[in-house]
Amino acid sequence: MNAGRTARGEDNRDRLLSAAAQAFAERGFHGTTTRDIAAAAGMSPAAVYVHHRSKEELLYQISRAGHERTLGLVTAAIARADSPVEQLRGVVHDFAWHHAEENTSARVVNYELAALSPEHSAEIREFRRQISNELRTLVERGVADGSFDCPQPRIAATALLSLGVDIARWYREDGAWAPDELADAYVELALRIVGGYD
Amino acid sequence: MNAGRTARGEDNRDRLLSAAAQAFAERGFHGTTTRDIAAAAGMSPAAVYVHHRSKEELLYQISRAGHERTLGLVTAAIARADSPVEQLRGVVHDFAWHHAEENTSARVVNYELAALSPEHSAEIREFRRQISNELRTLVERGVADGSFDCPQPRIAATALLSLGVDIARWYREDGAWAPDELADAYVELALRIVGGYD
Repeated sequence: MNAGRTARGEDNRDRLLSAAAQAFAERGFHGTTTRDIAAAAGMSPAAVYVHHRSKEELLYQISRAGHERTLGLVTAAIARADSPVEQLRGVVHDFAWHHAEENTSARVVNYELAALSPEHSAEIREFRRQISNELRTLVERGVADGSFDCPQPRIAATALLSLGVDIARWYREDGAWAPDELADAYVELALRIVGGYD
Repeated sequence: MNAGRTARGEDNRDRLLSAAAQAFAERGFHGTTTRDIAAAAGMSPAAVYVHHRSKEELLYQISRAGHERTLGLVTAAIARADSPVEQLRGVVHDFAWHHAEENTSARVVNYELAALSPEHSAEIREFRRQISNELRTLVERGVADGSFDCPQPRIAATALLSLGVDIARWYREDGAWAPDELADAYVELALRIVGGYD
C-alpha cells in the first residue's frame, strides 16, 4: 500500500510538472496561474500545493530537472569519446537533439530564468556555468592538440551553445527537419565553426 | 503651437515605447502592467491610453519597429555589396551588432510574439518570413555561383539567423565582447558555416 501511494504521488507530481511546463511554454510564467496548471493536470488548486509550495517552486523543479539532464548529456557525450572531434560530434548532436525533441520544456528552462527566486537562480546559473565550461574546455582541448583550427575558441564555444539553445525557440514538430536530421546537420556546422575535420 | 504639440506628443510616445520595452524585457509582457509602464515613463495610466489603446498595442508598436529595422538592415547590407561573400559579411555583421547593441528591445521583439493579437502576429510573422527569405536566398546565390560550399543551404541559413537572434538572449553589456567585436567574430563564423572564403 505504501509503495502504491508513493507511486501515485510521483505520478501526480510528474503530471503536475508536465502540465506546468506546457502552460509556462505557451503563456509564460507570469501569464500562467496555479489554477491553470491545476486544471491542465486534472487536479484541484489545493492539490497543487500538496506537491509544491508555489508556482515558482514548480518552475524551479522544471528548470533543475532540465539543467541536470542537459549537463548530464554533455558530460556523457564527452566521457564516451576519446578525441575532441568525436566528443564535439557527440555533444553537439545530443544537445541539438534534446532542444528539438524537448523544445517545450527547453523553452521554459531557457527563457524563464528571470522568474526564479534569487536562491534558485543562483543554483541554476551554476548548472549553466558548468555546461558552458564543458563546451569551452572541449574547444580549447581541440585547439591545443591541433584537432581544431579556431582563432577565437571562447566565441566559437559561445556560438555552439547558442545554436543549440536557440533551437528550443524556433523548432516546431511540423517543420522541415526531424530532431535527428537537425542534430546531424548541426554536427557538421559545429565542425566547420571550430575548424575540426576528421 | 501645433508643431510644438505634435513634437511633444511624439516625445511622449517614444518615452512610453522605450519604458514599455524595458519593462517587457525585464518582467515579460504578462508580468508587466500598464501602470508599471506609465510609472516608468513618468506618466499617468490614463495618459498611456491617449497614445495606445492597450498594452498589446504597445507591444505591437515595439515589435513592428524592431522588425522593420531588422529587415531594413538586412536588405541594406545586401544592396550595398556585389558578391555573396561581401553581402554575407555585411548582413551577419549588422544583424549581430543590432542584437547585441539593442539586446533589450530585441529580447521583446523575439520572445513575446505569442502575446500579439492574431492580426498583429500575422503582420509580424510576414516580416520574419521576409528576413528569413533574404538570408536563405543569399546563401543559395552563394552556393549557385560557387562562392559558398555548403551541402545544406537551408539549415545553414537557419543557423545564421539563429546565431544572430540568440545574441539578444545571452548578450550583456558588461560581458567579454563589445557589439562590434562580437559582430566581426560572427562574420568569420558565418563564412565557415557556409564554406565561403575571400
